[in-house]
Amino acid sequence: MNASEFRKRGKEMVDYIADYLEGIEARQVYPDVEPGYLRPLIPASAPQEPETFEDIMTDVEKIIMPGAASPACTELETVMMDWLGKMLELPEAFLAESGGEGGGVIQGSASEATLVALLAARTKVTRQLQMASPELSQASIMEKLVAYSSDQAHSSVERAGLIGGVKIKAIPSDGKFAMRGSALQEALERDKAAGLIPFFVVATLGTTPCCSFDNLLEVGPICTEANVWLHIDAAYAGSAFICPEFRHLLNGVEFADSFNFNPHKWLLVNFDCSAMWVKKRSSLTGAFKLDPLYLKHSHQDSGLITDYRHWQLPLGRRFRSLKMWFVFRMYGVKGLQAYIRKHVQLSHEFESLVRQDPCFEICAEVTLGLVCFRLKGTNEQNEALLEKINSAKKIHLVPCHLREKFVLRFAICSRTVESAHVQQAWKHIRELTTELLRAQKK
Amino acid sequence: MNASEFRKRGKEMVDYIADYLEGIEARQVYPDVEPGYLRPLIPASAPQEPETFEDIMTDVEKIIMPGAASPACTELETVMMDWLGKMLELPEAFLAESGGEGGGVIQGSASEATLVALLAARTKVTRQLQMASPELSQASIMEKLVAYSSDQAHSSVERAGLIGGVKIKAIPSDGKFAMRGSALQEALERDKAAGLIPFFVVATLGTTPCCSFDNLLEVGPICTEANVWLHIDAAYAGSAFICPEFRHLLNGVEFADSFNFNPHKWLLVNFDCSAMWVKKRSSLTGAFKLDPLYLKHSHQDSGLITDYRHWQLPLGRRFRSLKMWFVFRMYGVKGLQAYIRKHVQLSHEFESLVRQDPCFEICAEVTLGLVCFRLKGTNEQNEALLEKINSAKKIHLVPCHLREKFVLRFAICSRTVESAHVQQAWKHIRELTTELLRAQKK
Repeated sequence: MNASEFRKRGKEMVDYIADYLEGIEARQVYPDVEPGYLRPLIPASAPQEPETFEDIMTDVEKIIMPGAASPACTELETVMMDWLGKMLELPEAFLAESGGEGGGVIQGSASEATLVALLAARTKVTRQLQMASPELSQASIMEKLVAYSSDQAHSSVERAGLIGGVKIKAIPSDGKFAMRGSALQEALERDKAAGLIPFFVVATLGTTPCCSFDNLLEVGPICTEANVWLHIDAAYAGSAFICPEFRHLLNGVEFADSFNFNPHKWLLVNFDCSAMWVKKRSSLTGAFKLDPLYLKHSHQDSGLITDYRHWQLPLGRRFRSLKMWFVFRMYGVKGLQAYIRKHVQLSHEFESLVRQDPCFEICAEVTLGLVCFRLKGTNEQNEALLEKINSAKKIHLVPCHLREKFVLRFAICSRTVESAHVQQAWKHIRELTTELLRAQKK
Repeated sequence: MNASEFRKRGKEMVDYIADYLEGIEARQVYPDVEPGYLRPLIPASAPQEPETFEDIMTDVEKIIMPGAASPACTELETVMMDWLGKMLELPEAFLAESGGEGGGVIQGSASEATLVALLAARTKVTRQLQMASPELSQASIMEKLVAYSSDQAHSSVERAGLIGGVKIKAIPSDGKFAMRGSALQEALERDKAAGLIPFFVVATLGTTPCCSFDNLLEVGPICTEANVWLHIDAAYAGSAFICPEFRHLLNGVEFADSFNFNPHKWLLVNFDCSAMWVKKRSSLTGAFKLDPLYLKHSHQDSGLITDYRHWQLPLGRRFRSLKMWFVFRMYGVKGLQAYIRKHVQLSHEFESLVRQDPCFEICAEVTLGLVCFRLKGTNEQNEALLEKINSAKKIHLVPCHLREKFVLRFAICSRTVESAHVQQAWKHIRELTTELLRAQKK
């Protein structure tokens, strides 16, 4: 949507809201629809081609308004998570429409998704162990629980361990910054031999420092074999899996108990919207479920409906699936794929500019929209270059450490980025580099 | 703001956003302002009288846009939490402007605030005990930790205990559904004698079932004496404390370590916005702080700035203080007070209608906007009446249990509610009651 259509549609929406508020007394306070009303009114998959704003607003009036906030909010979320799951070709077991035990939920952030998964895994293993040995206290079990992630995993994984009160250990990644099966296996065996209880592994697809990918096809079977909950954090990279040419990066997801990525990062859905799927709903709800009378409703024992409050940390929730519905339909799957592909192409364009310059080196494989690069020189030189770039305030880079190296990260992430911006950015970096090297020679 | 002004201002805002997007290339990617730039540009307190939309938009352009997302997002939040804290007459120790150790933060929900407080308290007591006896493991401490709340507390308190992996015990409330000092003291002594470690108490101001108030002036000193973290959950009632005539309900807050209420419930700020204050910032940040390189910035060791990511469960955050700023200025403190007073007056109007009818009884003291009432009859009769009311879908009531009684709850909570609605609702309830009693006689 360009700015002129945004002006038009935005103003129509303002009127829609004002009309709603002015006419609110004529509306019923509680909807007439029955649980499950929404799914049959909506296609089973996201459209391939873009639809018009009018089409979507017609459906808002016809499909959403009769279902008011509830159950429309819940049911649209379940269907949108199925749409998105199918775009990623997630295994059926993760989709609610399969009629199995799985399904999706929108969390606020990947940090919350990781924490929710860890808590569910903690509850599951505790119950299993107490079933076998009823004399074990929760604390005596928790003392021995260990979670694992690669040494490249996001800080939110360590934080989830802190909050959940369990040990969390970093598995050394390989030369490509990936967690491999052998290193995980070794840690599991060592810890089991020491009397500890491995219960949770976070595999990262698209790490924060350099967008590396843990080896799911190795890690997955090891987790299954060891009866350890496998959570996949693909916060950034997940959006790319809607393109067939990147889907192989998700191979092995079939071994996971839970999978999460952030459409708010790279799929044009506004912050916040973190998509999480589980293979077994009852593992999540088992960790959180409490049912006071003021939250009871007539459908809760029917098995027909989803109570997302048992899937998450907060009780209340916003109607976040609406923005997914709008974005998926306004772009169509093809439009979203084109958006991802353009960003990846632009990052390769930047990569090749860097590679052509003998002063610079590429520090990690460029797979998606992130390019890790640095001056062939000392860390101090690279820190000075970063300082120069960020002080100029024309572009902004966030650094990382890869092993002992201080590395600059060039991320393609704006909705409106074009080749011209990439070219300008590189020219700018080159100029600042020349200045820096000249000053250092003096 | 009425619907016609909303149409005008909403459309201006759409243009403002479109203009911003069209002109974005001319903007700098990183602001020039220094940490602390915002506070001197904004009054120290919320205005008493309403201001105009133009005034606020002028300030957005002048004060917020130069500070972009960061640091404006953080700094406006800190100042808005001070404004709100002063509206409630919170003790200085909770205000960031006092230059002390306290301050406020916006959480997503009261559930998260309770959990964050519990985790902070857990970390604090664990560190204190390990300082004294370094041989103690975290698990051996957690096994003995006990948190407390009244038997009327919200289910999210029990849930926080589940998530935090600690015991949580319900203190029997008194005849007015309030937690009293004696009952708490008794539980603390009994548990200490049994070798347990009391570490956390949640006092509720305005319970969910009947809006009762725990006795802070009794509970507070006991917590201080026992070195137990006192968290106050005033999720609903907190908004009323901006009126001097209700402020006494908050007396004793000076004993608390943390205090929370939801402006999104009753202060005209859209969902979600949960306001939390702590007396000692470092207790929160101590529980969560991790500092990877990709989240480092040049000001973090200066002591000048607030990193809210260490105050909450998620890492990312939305710019939620903007809506507080708009609401506080557009209504002014007097406008917000008038809004609260109107609701309380309407609930008393409903209360007196109920009291005039010999078939009904009031089941708990009416203090704010909630009226608990029931037919003088069996629980089955009241359940049947509720079913009849909610099936008619003209009004919607949520029930509760008070001791053995099934009780109906009439809540005044709409922005546009008037006396006429209350009268209509009561007439409607009376008619359905007559129908019900007639049918039961047959």
